[in-house]
Amino acid sequence: MSGWLAIAGLGPGSETLVTPEVSRALAEATDVVGYFPYVARIARRPGLTLHASDNRVEIDRSLHALKMAAEGHRVVVVSSGDPGVFAMAAAVFEAVEAGPMAWRDLDIRVLPGVTSMLAAAARVGAPLGHDFCAVNLSDNLKPWSLIERRIALAVEADFAIAFYNPRSKSRPEGFVRVLEILKQICGTGRAIIFARAVSTEEEDIRVVTVQDATPEMADMRTMVIVGSSQTRVIPRNGLPIVYTPRSVTS
Amino acid sequence: MSGWLAIAGLGPGSETLVTPEVSRALAEATDVVGYFPYVARIARRPGLTLHASDNRVEIDRSLHALKMAAEGHRVVVVSSGDPGVFAMAAAVFEAVEAGPMAWRDLDIRVLPGVTSMLAAAARVGAPLGHDFCAVNLSDNLKPWSLIERRIALAVEADFAIAFYNPRSKSRPEGFVRVLEILKQICGTGRAIIFARAVSTEEEDIRVVTVQDATPEMADMRTMVIVGSSQTRVIPRNGLPIVYTPRSVTS
Repeated sequence: MSGWLAIAGLGPGSETLVTPEVSRALAEATDVVGYFPYVARIARRPGLTLHASDNRVEIDRSLHALKMAAEGHRVVVVSSGDPGVFAMAAAVFEAVEAGPMAWRDLDIRVLPGVTSMLAAAARVGAPLGHDFCAVNLSDNLKPWSLIERRIALAVEADFAIAFYNPRSKSRPEGFVRVLEILKQICGTGRAIIFARAVSTEEEDIRVVTVQDATPEMADMRTMVIVGSSQTRVIPRNGLPIVYTPRSVTS
Repeated sequence: MSGWLAIAGLGPGSETLVTPEVSRALAEATDVVGYFPYVARIARRPGLTLHASDNRVEIDRSLHALKMAAEGHRVVVVSSGDPGVFAMAAAVFEAVEAGPMAWRDLDIRVLPGVTSMLAAAARVGAPLGHDFCAVNLSDNLKPWSLIERRIALAVEADFAIAFYNPRSKSRPEGFVRVLEILKQICGTGRAIIFARAVSTEEEDIRVVTVQDATPEMADMRTMVIVGSSQTRVIPRNGLPIVYTPRSVTS
């Protein structure tokens, strides 16, 4: 029995952002498991079985991967970005904790990747150059009231904020509300970045102020980054540079 | 004039975590600029000049890199981890904003990388699997009172917290105070991870509770991650698994 399970981050989209560690695990794997658009990024080859599944079946997918690894398969569970940030790693460990004790001794590794907020930040400058937080705006798995409380506290702490999963067809109202809150508490002129499909052919980046932001600027493929009170915008030809200085003076 | 400036993240240490995008920029560069331990990671070759400098001279280093790019050099500024997270990207854009207008039209790209907190999180499971924040504990560039306020608000928001630069020889007191604050406000049993030199030969990972944490567990090469109130520890042979579940129920 030499099975193992690697939970790997494919980065935001471009093959040039996939780490050699992840490429190697994929080359050694017998099975790849994941949400279908991520599995679609994996090159087919003899000896490799691709198991694509739909969204919102993360625990089923984790159980399937763990069972195969326990049977001796070399399994890679793929996420986009980094697998530990609003992705498959937590789901797999939820399944491990609830599963048979023997699963705790499986060879399970998490292979980090370039998460979406870092790729998005890189496209415009360095908006996350000072303290920041990351908030998942999907309320599938937490109460909406908690999201609102976190946003208020994050603004009070003067963090730059990276919003994952800002908006989907099934829950269009949440991001409307988020923008209302930000317009109330952030003052005028705060920079907000909408970075869609970063590093793919559909990449589209916008920089506006919170006042000018509209809900339609985001969809499920968009990373939204809101600057702190210190974040600077440098105008130039084309997209401006956005960065948060390293220093805060009291 | 075909000069350019790439601000690149080398990842936490292992060459297997350097993206192909960064490797390509390094292969095309005429000059590499950075803090000496990071420049030491770059392979020497004919046609490449290495410019290593000391810590705390980030603006001088940025000016040097920008001037060379403006003169037609192909310059890579290297950081460990991701260049946009407590690293060189913000410093370069500070220099751009204060510099000649012509610098705004230079070809400047930020090449993202695997930042330290993601590599550290991956080693123990998925402690950043739910909402989280990243706080730089160095008070070289911000007042200590702001750090304390941010920690209190981050705990109130129930974020997992990733602490960068927790402790150095020149400022040993800060992290002592951070642990005191956490012991006061986090209750007993909260998981804390000390991940030193992740992905290098000196890698050393510890998982303890906040109550059992001591300042000596961290140094400048250590990433510290404090779980949220929801973070779970799964005991097993060897290092336990630490993960923060995706769900919070109200």
